[in-house]
Amino acid sequence: MDRRSFLKNSALGGTAAAATTLAAPAYAQGNRTLTMVTSVPDGFAVFDDAAEKMIELVNKMGDGSLTIEKKSAGQLVGAFEVFDAVSSGQADMYHSADYYFGGQHPGYYFFTAVPFGATGGEMASWYYHGGGRELHDELGEIFGLKSFLAGNTGHQPGGWFNKEINSAADLQGLKFRMPGLGGLALGRTGASVQNLPGGEVYQALASGAIDGAEWIGPFADERLGFQEICEFYYTGGMHEPGSALCCATNLDVFNELSGTHQSIIETAAAATHQWSLSQSNYNNGAALERLKAQGVKVLEFSDEIWDAFGEAASGALDEFMDDELFARIRASQEKAVNEVYSWTSVSDDVFTSQRGRVRG
Amino acid sequence: MDRRSFLKNSALGGTAAAATTLAAPAYAQGNRTLTMVTSVPDGFAVFDDAAEKMIELVNKMGDGSLTIEKKSAGQLVGAFEVFDAVSSGQADMYHSADYYFGGQHPGYYFFTAVPFGATGGEMASWYYHGGGRELHDELGEIFGLKSFLAGNTGHQPGGWFNKEINSAADLQGLKFRMPGLGGLALGRTGASVQNLPGGEVYQALASGAIDGAEWIGPFADERLGFQEICEFYYTGGMHEPGSALCCATNLDVFNELSGTHQSIIETAAAATHQWSLSQSNYNNGAALERLKAQGVKVLEFSDEIWDAFGEAASGALDEFMDDELFARIRASQEKAVNEVYSWTSVSDDVFTSQRGRVRG
Repeated sequence: MDRRSFLKNSALGGTAAAATTLAAPAYAQGNRTLTMVTSVPDGFAVFDDAAEKMIELVNKMGDGSLTIEKKSAGQLVGAFEVFDAVSSGQADMYHSADYYFGGQHPGYYFFTAVPFGATGGEMASWYYHGGGRELHDELGEIFGLKSFLAGNTGHQPGGWFNKEINSAADLQGLKFRMPGLGGLALGRTGASVQNLPGGEVYQALASGAIDGAEWIGPFADERLGFQEICEFYYTGGMHEPGSALCCATNLDVFNELSGTHQSIIETAAAATHQWSLSQSNYNNGAALERLKAQGVKVLEFSDEIWDAFGEAASGALDEFMDDELFARIRASQEKAVNEVYSWTSVSDDVFTSQRGRVRG
Repeated sequence: MDRRSFLKNSALGGTAAAATTLAAPAYAQGNRTLTMVTSVPDGFAVFDDAAEKMIELVNKMGDGSLTIEKKSAGQLVGAFEVFDAVSSGQADMYHSADYYFGGQHPGYYFFTAVPFGATGGEMASWYYHGGGRELHDELGEIFGLKSFLAGNTGHQPGGWFNKEINSAADLQGLKFRMPGLGGLALGRTGASVQNLPGGEVYQALASGAIDGAEWIGPFADERLGFQEICEFYYTGGMHEPGSALCCATNLDVFNELSGTHQSIIETAAAATHQWSLSQSNYNNGAALERLKAQGVKVLEFSDEIWDAFGEAASGALDEFMDDELFARIRASQEKAVNEVYSWTSVSDDVFTSQRGRVRG
């Protein structure tokens, strides 16, 4: 998904007006209510589910002394104004995906997903044990934020196509919707990358204005009805291997909270990351089976195409390497991913492939 | 690991005497201190790390009104008396691995690991979204426990061998240490399964009394020094694909807690499951590289051997199918695992194998 798709989905023409309705957060005596602004409408699959889960956990554990009140995209600030609103102290916290804020600092891409980057499980290993959280803190110091992972969409598929993609040559001039660093990478393969708002993707595909599009995953994609207009679904993708969501609190607000309240927020966020990742993985399997039953052909890109993706992804990331912090975060995440995969590739992966083969 | 290995490690000759030192838990006015008994000594890799993490989270969030005090194996009750101690109300909660209590009910095997069962990530999907937690509750009702997953060792390797295992025929008469349902399965392949205490495994391997052994994973195995006496390490294993740890509270004690305290325990346990799984995955990769540098040959079993494992695992599980609840838990977990894997096998797995191939 991209920034504009959210703006469209949340029915905000312009969002500047909404910002004027902001008031400074009220500090009650004793009890504390934090206003959480989000980048999606109420009920938005995966994203809002995670925000609601985190709020539920904090409010239960906070026992009235700490409460989060959610303001969805557009209610206080626009979908992509949440970063600046929390950074400036206009709102207390946001729940969003940090790669929307790559314009503020490209280091934020790594805290959602980068092409050829970390899966959901690898992200957790890096974040909680491999230095990721500390680097998130370092970025947060720049912008006055205290951030925690708080959700994960799991692997985002290569996407929907109206024709088979049999070689990297088939990508040349292909009009494909893909936002963010993934789109930047795809553009380097010769594809014509389109950044359509989410609300326009279905119609653009149906009319033939574009040749393909990626969205989130089977469970969310099914709801938009892509299976009605596209025959081919490439499930493996290079652009978002496990997109984390994030809860960021204004740093001054966070520092004024008690250690108990700080710990409640941090623990609720961590529990939400696992809950959300396992939600996506659980729902996507059944959804994929339903898509197949409706005639969707599930395919994978060839090695030659993946080679082209790999070169393009490196090129896209290299564009930001002049930034010292970006380079440091990239090195840290890549090291952790390599170490984790050197284990899981000869353990979990060997086991699951054998289980699949033996059980049929 | 098996029950006896823990008894040995915790230096308990007989454990019945220790049980007599138990006192009824003290109920202070207002503030609540819960005594947690565990099945391992202080500092025991992965297991005690998870117990300590959970205690840290609960104590921070509990703000003095809820505190957990840990009593390691043997301090109040013996390593494997924790289940009965908490069930009877002699202790408030335990942190352990529920498959040690398969003798109390075979359904408990599924809440740690069964042969050919769930990986760590699949376990989370089943538990939090596929009905696993509700079935854990149903078991808990029988024994007066309220249980939550609270740790995960990740995939446990096929094990250490003094010779290569090239066919299922090589398993015939092989003296191999493997506890639990995995050992029951391995025995059906013709291996001579040994249930040595953990403290005796190294010496038995070094002397040639046994031909091989499984332990936990590279990080923990390295500490025991198996690389000094075994040349071959099979990383993929069938017996414990992702062993969950568990925190169980006496049901009456849990029901008397406030909703806030209940939520703090549940959320801390969930955060600990993710923290622990990602800890193992993070540490095992680097440990495996160190083992290789010391000359260990990392191998995988052949398809023919995996076929034998598959048949043996089904046979071992089928032995318990007369128990209605066991059968229902098995069906629920297998359904969830199949659904999750139908997704991850064409998403995460395609991505990671291509990333590995492209990046080299």
